[in-house]
Amino acid sequence: MPFDTIWTNARLATMAPGQPGLGIIEHGCVASKDGRIVFAGATADMPSGADAMERIDCDGRWITPGMVDCHTHLIFGGNRANEFAMRLDGASYEEISRAGGGIASSMLATRAATEEQLVTSGLKRLDHLIAEGVTTLEIKSGYGLDQATEIRCLSAARQLGRERAVSVVTSFLGAHAMPPEAKGDKDAYIARVCDEMLPAIAKLKLADAVDAFCEGIAFSPAQTARVFAAAKSFGLPVKLHADQLSNLHGARLAAEHGALSADHLEHTDEDGVIALTKAGTVAVVLPGAFYALRETQAPPIALFRKHGTHLALATDCNPGTSPLTSLLLAMNMGATLFHLTVDECLLGVTREAARALGRLGEVGTLEAGKSCDLAIWDIEQPAELVYRIGFNPLHARVWHGQSQTTLSR
Amino acid sequence: MPFDTIWTNARLATMAPGQPGLGIIEHGCVASKDGRIVFAGATADMPSGADAMERIDCDGRWITPGMVDCHTHLIFGGNRANEFAMRLDGASYEEISRAGGGIASSMLATRAATEEQLVTSGLKRLDHLIAEGVTTLEIKSGYGLDQATEIRCLSAARQLGRERAVSVVTSFLGAHAMPPEAKGDKDAYIARVCDEMLPAIAKLKLADAVDAFCEGIAFSPAQTARVFAAAKSFGLPVKLHADQLSNLHGARLAAEHGALSADHLEHTDEDGVIALTKAGTVAVVLPGAFYALRETQAPPIALFRKHGTHLALATDCNPGTSPLTSLLLAMNMGATLFHLTVDECLLGVTREAARALGRLGEVGTLEAGKSCDLAIWDIEQPAELVYRIGFNPLHARVWHGQSQTTLSR
Repeated sequence: MPFDTIWTNARLATMAPGQPGLGIIEHGCVASKDGRIVFAGATADMPSGADAMERIDCDGRWITPGMVDCHTHLIFGGNRANEFAMRLDGASYEEISRAGGGIASSMLATRAATEEQLVTSGLKRLDHLIAEGVTTLEIKSGYGLDQATEIRCLSAARQLGRERAVSVVTSFLGAHAMPPEAKGDKDAYIARVCDEMLPAIAKLKLADAVDAFCEGIAFSPAQTARVFAAAKSFGLPVKLHADQLSNLHGARLAAEHGALSADHLEHTDEDGVIALTKAGTVAVVLPGAFYALRETQAPPIALFRKHGTHLALATDCNPGTSPLTSLLLAMNMGATLFHLTVDECLLGVTREAARALGRLGEVGTLEAGKSCDLAIWDIEQPAELVYRIGFNPLHARVWHGQSQTTLSR
Repeated sequence: MPFDTIWTNARLATMAPGQPGLGIIEHGCVASKDGRIVFAGATADMPSGADAMERIDCDGRWITPGMVDCHTHLIFGGNRANEFAMRLDGASYEEISRAGGGIASSMLATRAATEEQLVTSGLKRLDHLIAEGVTTLEIKSGYGLDQATEIRCLSAARQLGRERAVSVVTSFLGAHAMPPEAKGDKDAYIARVCDEMLPAIAKLKLADAVDAFCEGIAFSPAQTARVFAAAKSFGLPVKLHADQLSNLHGARLAAEHGALSADHLEHTDEDGVIALTKAGTVAVVLPGAFYALRETQAPPIALFRKHGTHLALATDCNPGTSPLTSLLLAMNMGATLFHLTVDECLLGVTREAARALGRLGEVGTLEAGKSCDLAIWDIEQPAELVYRIGFNPLHARVWHGQSQTTLSR
């Protein structure tokens, strides 16, 4: 049985577990059949007599798994450039709030947008991620904060996956912030999230997971636990925005509920790190928000290393605290601001990001049986992907075995 | 006499001096003839009966002057990804130095490269800048540190200007670092820079300006002054890497020599700021290096504002301390890390950057008589160019009146 395609003469960073570092193979090739990887390894180990409809000579270039951005808020209306400018001009948060800024402004713009408008504006951001080799990304709702708009946002996210050669994993984040019509009654709003929005969204199969924001300015651990219990009743996995601005023991809470990931984690303590590790919950760090908010307390990277916590990183693309559409830059910020190593960064946007989405069986490494999602790079060594700032050395992108020759830009 | 091209239905940020802020015109157009701007202003003010060979409807998009990157070390051999990775793995500077890292490694790779190789590797970086609307950039030598290689680097820089539709302004930076063969004798090396290299380079007309690095780890104020005097004898303007790591009063020295610009300036004091302002020397801040080096002392932005110093910003693209090839990102870093306003950022990569290169008569604003270099953006307001991180909304680029329809990527 011939293969469909063989990418030959390549250097591989397979990211396979059980291998040291990035699982590097200096003289390697990848073969696909029906959109799946059927071989990824040393050319010398290729089955003899292997043939393919198509052979692509990579000329010594590097192949990594397609990149995975495991935390984005890609779908929203408007942008917050105006408030960014006001803040630099010296406006206080109160003045910005009075001028209609903050999350309320994104919520209003999102509610006012049609699904088509949300898809159109989302595509511009998605195309930047795709141009850097992203083949799988997570997209959260959370700027609608009412049932109709949350559904429209998740539906727009699904639509992005049909418009482009990319896999979209959705998360329902109704418990992101308080809508003004809830008039500050957080318990009543959480009841609506659990008893009205979530059942409707689950019925439409629009969410692959359920997320929440556990923080003083958002929802309490008890309210978060309620959302998680509701998610479980629909068989949906959970994840959490945890310990970003203060330590509410969100990491522990996420771990107790077997969350796929706990994200941000700037204020997580060792107890929380141990709990994450034991639960197999992935710690997702988001240096873009840390940078944009000029934060000073970094997540406890040394504790993650000490305990062997799974560690991923992502863009956190959102209109307020991280208007970032470059996963390469997220890696550079992870290294520069959090002192992550090159290997931690690269594993964090491939294997570990796939694990954070519950998709490690499908994507995230170059291993036989997985979806043939590849990024092919014009580089001499993988460290270049982290070291450079504002540079994109992507040569080609492959999704489900198909080369995406025209990079959308 | 008809125009060659009219860009109609546009919003303009002319950056013209004497206008408030960015010189915004909501309903504007730009007309070109023989590669020059012959009109840029309100559509209502267009000469009646104006006609053109070609009319381009901008559909309400924004036009700014083509972007100017006034400080780059774009030409060098190799890269320093390996040493970046070693540092993150915990290697000390001494270990990296023993492994052949640091500026010595770039110097060796640059000396080993042919001019063609330097052009090829430089083009990749240049194409990233061009893709973001850069139409003029400065390129320094300074990784050769011997006469033949410095000449080869400057010649490669000139070649980049022939290979792409972009204006290249070169600076001879022989006084960048000490080559190993000089065995630590800085005065002897500076004598070679002044008495051998500079005359040869001036004769070949390869340098538009002369730069130096005044710092404890580089050259003293007295050695710098010697380089400046030599430059003057060849009629070449000067500029300076000043006060980056310590205050050697480099800003004052630059001002005293009527330098075009003084660059970095993290440690400049108020005396230095006053001297720069009086001399009309542009303060060029370089947030990419500040970010990559994890510096904590920002340049004295408040003093620049207090005294009305001309303020520009640039990528500082170089292999060691700022492997940055995005001028949009340099603006975001200027705002995020130095708290520059949106207007300061945008003027700093157009009008003020042109002034820093001594090219304000030619480029940097949308004014009749200047080269018709335009950047046309898919945005709703100029602040978006600063607010977004890792996003490129360039719609089209015009250089010398010619639309560059195919963006090189």
